[in-house]
Amino acid sequence: MLFQVEMTVSIPHDWNAEAVARLQAEEKQYCHKLQREGKWLHIWRVVGRYANVSIFDAASNDELHDLLRQLPLFPFMQITVTPLARHPSSLDGAG
Amino acid sequence: MLFQVEMTVSIPHDWNAEAVARLQAEEKQYCHKLQREGKWLHIWRVVGRYANVSIFDAASNDELHDLLRQLPLFPFMQITVTPLARHPSSLDGAG
Amino acid sequence: MLFQVEMTVSIPHDWNAEAVARLQAEEKQYCHKLQREGKWLHIWRVVGRYANVSIFDAASNDELHDLLRQLPLFPFMQITVTPLARHPSSLDGAG
Amino acid sequence: MLFQVEMTVSIPHDWNAEAVARLQAEEKQYCHKLQREGKWLHIWRVVGRYANVSIFDAASNDELHDLLRQLPLFPFMQITVTPLARHPSSLDGAG
Amino acid sequence: MLFQVEMTVSIPHDWNAEAVARLQAEEKQYCHKLQREGKWLHIWRVVGRYANVSIFDAASNDELHDLLRQLPLFPFMQITVTPLARHPSSLDGAG
Amino acid sequence: MLFQVEMTVSIPHDWNAEAVARLQAEEKQYCHKLQREGKWLHIWRVVGRYANVSIFDAASNDELHDLLRQLPLFPFMQITVTPLARHPSSLDGAG
Amino acid sequence: MLFQVEMTVSIPHDWNAEAVARLQAEEKQYCHKLQREGKWLHIWRVVGRYANVSIFDAASNDELHDLLRQLPLFPFMQITVTPLARHPSSLDGAG
Amino acid sequence: MLFQVEMTVSIPHDWNAEAVARLQAEEKQYCHKLQREGKWLHIWRVVGRYANVSIFDAASNDELHDLLRQLPLFPFMQITVTPLARHPSSLDGAG
Amino acid sequence: MLFQVEMTVSIPHDWNAEAVARLQAEEKQYCHKLQREGKWLHIWRVVGRYANVSIFDAASNDELHDLLRQLPLFPFMQITVTPLARHPSSLDGAG
Amino acid sequence: MLFQVEMTVSIPHDWNAEAVARLQAEEKQYCHKLQREGKWLHIWRVVGRYANVSIFDAASNDELHDLLRQLPLFPFMQITVTPLARHPSSLDGAG
Repeated sequence: MLFQVEMTVSIPHDWNAEAVARLQAEEKQYCHKLQREGKWLHIWRVVGRYANVSIFDAASNDELHDLLRQLPLFPFMQITVTPLARHPSSLDGAG
Repeated sequence: MLFQVEMTVSIPHDWNAEAVARLQAEEKQYCHKLQREGKWLHIWRVVGRYANVSIFDAASNDELHDLLRQLPLFPFMQITVTPLARHPSSLDGAG
Repeated sequence: MLFQVEMTVSIPHDWNAEAVARLQAEEKQYCHKLQREGKWLHIWRVVGRYANVSIFDAASNDELHDLLRQLPLFPFMQITVTPLARHPSSLDGAG
Repeated sequence: MLFQVEMTVSIPHDWNAEAVARLQAEEKQYCHKLQREGKWLHIWRVVGRYANVSIFDAASNDELHDLLRQLPLFPFMQITVTPLARHPSSLDGAG
Repeated sequence: MLFQVEMTVSIPHDWNAEAVARLQAEEKQYCHKLQREGKWLHIWRVVGRYANVSIFDAASNDELHDLLRQLPLFPFMQITVTPLARHPSSLDGAG
Repeated sequence: MLFQVEMTVSIPHDWNAEAVARLQAEEKQYCHKLQREGKWLHIWRVVGRYANVSIFDAASNDELHDLLRQLPLFPFMQITVTPLARHPSSLDGAG
Repeated sequence: MLFQVEMTVSIPHDWNAEAVARLQAEEKQYCHKLQREGKWLHIWRVVGRYANVSIFDAASNDELHDLLRQLPLFPFMQITVTPLARHPSSLDGAG
Repeated sequence: MLFQVEMTVSIPHDWNAEAVARLQAEEKQYCHKLQREGKWLHIWRVVGRYANVSIFDAASNDELHDLLRQLPLFPFMQITVTPLARHPSSLDGAG
Repeated sequence: MLFQVEMTVSIPHDWNAEAVARLQAEEKQYCHKLQREGKWLHIWRVVGRYANVSIFDAASNDELHDLLRQLPLFPFMQITVTPLARHPSSLDGAG
Repeated sequence: MLFQVEMTVSIPHDWNAEAVARLQAEEKQYCHKLQREGKWLHIWRVVGRYANVSIFDAASNDELHDLLRQLPLFPFMQITVTPLARHPSSLDGAG
C-alpha cells in the first residue's frame, strides 16, 4: 500500500553542529535500512529546498506512522502524507 | 531528469458525457504511450479525488511541457510541477 | 485501518431538482449499506454546512478509493482523506 | 453533543526533556480519565505528525473549553474545534 | 450556548430577480422570527460585503444546524461556525 | 459604531511566569473598565484556544485603536478588526 | 474617519456588453459624485488588474456601507475594508 | 524600470473556439510588437500551465498598466505584478 | 509614480527596550524627512495592529527600494508593495 | 534549461553581525562567479524585501540543486523553483 510522503526539515540555526551531523548520519542509515527492506521505495530531493518527496510501501497506516516517527530527524520535520491507490491507467504491475 | 507532477481534473458537470468518455479514453492511450516510452515513470491515484501524483522523466523543461500540454484532458487540469534531484540517501541507481 | 474523510457537497444551483433528489436518495442508501458492512464507521454533519466528517475502516488505500468513487454524489464532492493510526493514549480496543 | 477536535503539538526543541516527559505522562493520564468519563470518545493519531483527531462529547461549549484548557500540553497545542450534528444518514443511535 | 456564525451570500448574477427578492423577504421574516424566539441574538452587516456576523444561542449543535439549514438563502451561503464559551473577564451575566 | 475584534494571545513559553500573571491581571482589570464604560460590549472565549471574539463600540477608528493598543497583552496579541454596520434585518434597536 | 477599501471587479465573460458599459458609466459618475462630496478621497488603479485601492472618509461604519452598497458595480465586486487611524508619525493635519 | 509579471490564462471551456483562436493570434502579435519595442523583455512558459512569467521594462506604473490592459487576453487573465530593483550583486549593466 | 506600501512591524519580545525606543525615534525622524521631501505621501495606522498603510511617490522602483531599505525598522518589517496607476475615474490631478 | 528561482532571506535578528557580513560577502562572490559562468542569468531585487527573483540556466535539475545548496546564505533562505519552457511567442533566440 503506497503513500506519498513529503518531508521538510527545519533545524534551528543555533543547534549544535555536531549533534546535527550525528542526526543526519543516523537519518541516512535509517533511510538505507528502510529502502533495503522495501518500505521506502523512492526518495527524491526537492530542488532548492531541504526537503524530499518520498514513496512508502507500508502494510497499514499504523506501520507507516511507526516508520515515520522513528526518523532521527522526525522532531525537526514537517511531514505530509497522501494515501495513494492504483491508477487505472498505470501499466506498473506493482501499482 | 525527474519531475513530480500533480494533476487534478475538473470537468464542468454539464459537459457532454460522450465527449468526456472520448477524452478519457484518449487520455488513457496517451498515458500508456508515455509510460511505454519511459517518459511517464509512475502514476498513482490520490485516494478520494479525481487527481493523480505522477513522476515524469524528461530530457528538459521544454520536453516536459510538450508532454503535458498534449494531455487530452489538459484544458480541464490543474497541474503542479516540482523539479526533483537525486537524493544523497537514495539507493536507487536511476535517481 | 482507519481514515478520516471530510466531504463537502456543492451542486450547481441550476441542477435539475429531481435528479438531485434521486442522487441524494441513492447516496443515503449507499451510506447505509457501507455502515452496515462496517466500512463507514461514523458520519457526522458539520454544523452550518452541506458537509460531513466521516471515519472509514478500509482494508487498503485501494479499497477506500473504490468505496469513495462510487458515492453517487462523488462528482459534486470535494473530499479530503487523512490516514489515522492508533493513538498510544487510546483506550479503544479497536483503534 | 459532539465536537471534532484536532490537536497539533509543538514543543520548543530546547525544552527540558524531563519536563516534557512529565507533561506527556500527565497528558496520557488526563486523556484516559476523560475517555473513562465518556467525554473523550475517540482519539486517533494523524499519520506522520505529532497531532491527533479526536471526538469529544460535551454538555456545552463551556464544558468543552474547560476540558481542553486543562490539557497538560494545552500551552503547546494548536487546537481546532468543529461542532458536529447528527447526520440524517447515520445509523448510529448515539449520533 | 453561544456560537459566532458568519454568513456570506453569493447568488449567481443571472438568477431570476423575482425569485431572489422572494428569498430575501423570506430570509428577513425567518431572521425576525428567530430573533424574537431568542435564538438569533445579534446580526450585524460586514461593511462592504453581502455578509453578516451573527451570534446564535442554541441548546445544542443539532438545534443550531436545524436553525441554519432552514435559512431560505442557505443554498447560496458560505457559513462558518465558531463555538463560544463564557470568557472569564466578561461582566455579562448571560455569558 | 460597532466593530468585531478577534484577539489571539501568544506568549513565548519561556516568559517569566510572574510577569505573565501580572499582565493577565492588568488585562482583566482593563477589560472590566472598558466594559463598564460601554466600550467593550461583549467578550467571548473561542472554544479550545487562547483567543476571544469581542464586540467594541467606539466613536471612531482612532478611539478604537487607542483602546486596543493600551491592552496590557497587546504586544502578545494578533488582532483582526472587522467594521460592522446595522443589518437591515436586525430587530436590535442599538444596531 | 478613514478607511482603506480595495475593490476587485469580476464581471462574467458572457455578460451583455451594453449593460456592462452602462454600469461602468454609472460607476464613474457615482465615483465622481463621492469624490466631489469629499467621501471618496483617493482612487488608484492596481497595476495589471481590474481593481482599485481607495481611501474613503465616512462619518461611521454605517455611512461607509451605504456608500459602498450603492456602487453600480457592487454585485460584481469583491471588497475588503480596513479601518485606518491617525499614525503618530504623520505630518498630515487631516490624518 | 523592470517588473516581473505573471499571467495565468483561464478561458471558459464553452467559449467559441474561433474567437479564442483569433484572440490568441492577436495576443501573439501584440506580444511580438512589445518585444520589438523593448517593453516586454522576456516571456517564458510556466511548465505544465497555461501561464507565463515575464519581465517588462516600462517608464512608469502608468505605462505598464496601459501595456497590460491592452493585452487581447486581458479579460481572461489573472495578473500579478512585482516591482523589481537593481540587485547589488548583479553584473548585468542594464539592471 | 505611486505605490501602496504596507508595513507590519514585529520586534522580538526580548529585544532591548532602549534599543527599540531608539530605533522607533529614528524611524519617526526618517518618516518625517521623507514626508517633507514629498516621497512619503500618506501614512495611516491599521487599527489594532502594529502596522501601517502608506502611499509613496518615487521616481522609480530603484528609488523606492532605496527609501524602504533605509527604514530604521526595516529588519523588523514585513513589507508589501503594490504599484499604483492613475485611475480613469480619479478627479485628483496628481493621480 | 531555465528556471525562475525566488529567494527570501531571513537571518535571526540576534545573529552575529560579523558572521552575517562574511556570509553576505561570500554570497556576493558566489553570485558573481555563477553569473560569469552563465549559470545565473539574472538577479533582481524584490522592491521592499530582502529577497530576489532570479533566472538560472542549468543543464539539469541536479545541477540546479547543486548550485543552490552551495549558496552561502542557503540555510537562511526560503527558495521556490519554477521550471520554465520556451514560450511560443518569445522572439528571444535563447528561450
